[in-house]
Amino acid sequence: MKNVTLKHLASKLGLSVSTVSRALTDSYEINVETKKRVKALAEELNYQPNPFAAFLRKHISKTIALIIPEISNNFFSLVIKGVETICAEKDYYVLIYETHEDYKKEVRITNHLIGGRVDGVLISVNSESDNCQHLQELVDRNVKMVMFDRVVENFNASKVYSDDYDSSFAGVSHLVNRGCKRILFLKAGDKLSTMHQREKAYFDVLEKNNLPKDPSFVKSFVPSKEIDLEDLTKFIVEKKPDAIFCSVERLAIGCYDICNNLGLNIPNDIKIITFSCLNVARLLNPSLSTISQPAFEIGKTAARLLLDEIEGKNLADGFANLSLPSTIIKRDSTRKSL
Amino acid sequence: MKNVTLKHLASKLGLSVSTVSRALTDSYEINVETKKRVKALAEELNYQPNPFAAFLRKHISKTIALIIPEISNNFFSLVIKGVETICAEKDYYVLIYETHEDYKKEVRITNHLIGGRVDGVLISVNSESDNCQHLQELVDRNVKMVMFDRVVENFNASKVYSDDYDSSFAGVSHLVNRGCKRILFLKAGDKLSTMHQREKAYFDVLEKNNLPKDPSFVKSFVPSKEIDLEDLTKFIVEKKPDAIFCSVERLAIGCYDICNNLGLNIPNDIKIITFSCLNVARLLNPSLSTISQPAFEIGKTAARLLLDEIEGKNLADGFANLSLPSTIIKRDSTRKSL
Repeated sequence: MKNVTLKHLASKLGLSVSTVSRALTDSYEINVETKKRVKALAEELNYQPNPFAAFLRKHISKTIALIIPEISNNFFSLVIKGVETICAEKDYYVLIYETHEDYKKEVRITNHLIGGRVDGVLISVNSESDNCQHLQELVDRNVKMVMFDRVVENFNASKVYSDDYDSSFAGVSHLVNRGCKRILFLKAGDKLSTMHQREKAYFDVLEKNNLPKDPSFVKSFVPSKEIDLEDLTKFIVEKKPDAIFCSVERLAIGCYDICNNLGLNIPNDIKIITFSCLNVARLLNPSLSTISQPAFEIGKTAARLLLDEIEGKNLADGFANLSLPSTIIKRDSTRKSL
Repeated sequence: MKNVTLKHLASKLGLSVSTVSRALTDSYEINVETKKRVKALAEELNYQPNPFAAFLRKHISKTIALIIPEISNNFFSLVIKGVETICAEKDYYVLIYETHEDYKKEVRITNHLIGGRVDGVLISVNSESDNCQHLQELVDRNVKMVMFDRVVENFNASKVYSDDYDSSFAGVSHLVNRGCKRILFLKAGDKLSTMHQREKAYFDVLEKNNLPKDPSFVKSFVPSKEIDLEDLTKFIVEKKPDAIFCSVERLAIGCYDICNNLGLNIPNDIKIITFSCLNVARLLNPSLSTISQPAFEIGKTAARLLLDEIEGKNLADGFANLSLPSTIIKRDSTRKSL
């Protein structure tokens, strides 16, 4: 099938190539009726702009990249939905890339984006490295960027995240209010901004309640690897925590399996609360108490900020820094012990 | 930052532009040592090929698109993992697109891909329409295509799917063997190849076991919409099915909620089995019996077929048609009644 060019459109419409081109890029110089006619024919004939020419001309691809560590995670699935909702309204395409927490893969992806493939990037950074040179390089080439959830503190970009400190504080306080004194904190790596906030809140709650702050009760897991259930089982058997505060969903799922294996009753022997957007948390045995981040809202807000930046509508005075509130949902896994 | 061009590379290396260009595209005319030197410098300086020139030259973008109906679905998450595993090995990029079951959105996405953005497409089609003109148009423009899971019977392309008929037959037979006689079948729409197979197997099992074949016991849900729990509740109250065979995971989750609301005991009052790759099925209350499709393998197999086609390595004699086996995992939701 032959490609439809600007020339074809122009001759069919009896207009100049330049008029057709400006009509398609929504130039203010062209009147509304002409724009309508041109766009209708372009759609009818399935006209595809020459990507290289478009790149030279305006650097507007109407495409953004969404870079996330993992797709099979309910938090990120909901973020994707939020981003796609906004982009569909504004007629932008979304390319989704998964880093699998791998720094090198993240670099490879951003390199892929350098050639004018996208107008902007939404990113939740990997947990392996805090090197941001590859991100700076994109920004230097005029690719707009908004960070969400896992943000880099010193990086110049708008950021959208949830209230990790406050919601963790409330979550750990809930465990203390249920009588727990030996609370194990399971975190996903040591690099992420989100984990720092969650850990700080954990220790602050212990301090406020005059509970011992034992560093061995903080265990760090490598997000890109399988959870070492054997090691965690050993810890639970030896140290007998009466509660577990999990920073990510799959750690909580691992804990359910361990408790089932050990014959420990949740919540009577041990209580569990976790950061999670798992849609079946209410159907687990027992139903799982969660700190649910506003993932869909985070996606929508980050996408709105990015499209505004791309279209030159952002506030003149620097970058946005938005924290959105999470919700604590108390279920049977943190019910009062019998 | 200035873009690195072929000219820069050539002058730094003391080679001609044409030699550098051919080295980067792995031409057989250039010796291995030279290729190594050129590629090393290109990587060091982060050389990005001019996308338009590359498009004209070879139509090799080393990028494929993966088009799926929804990301927040454990089956498709696992397919993505499989696809990315193969593509990472072969150094291909994967662009993930979500159609949300929307035919128009699928068309918009394939139009986006016409301009040489990708070398090939992996697609699991939407459930709204069986019009394939947009897919044919891509193939006509030499974009390679492999269909998986939800395939279109008469479309000329390689296809990878699971044994929907056989696994459904085994799943419904399992319910009959547990004594169920009034089995409700919940399907996701009427268009999909997968649903036809599952429905056929359902009726064949009933026939084989001399059970009544009541068409009102087949209920169809629109995949892109929320499930009408009220209507389904009414049916369950009135018709008193003793088992539910669900064609997709979220229908089973809806059934759990309904049974909880009605105070029906699973499995004593009603048994449930579903197609699902839900990773916490074992932790539900009660644990959920599943027909688990080999999603990861489907992703890997489809990706391998597609890359082989792109690289001209496919078999000469037409298209592949591969069915991979699912696994039935019997858990408490289909346990013998007390």
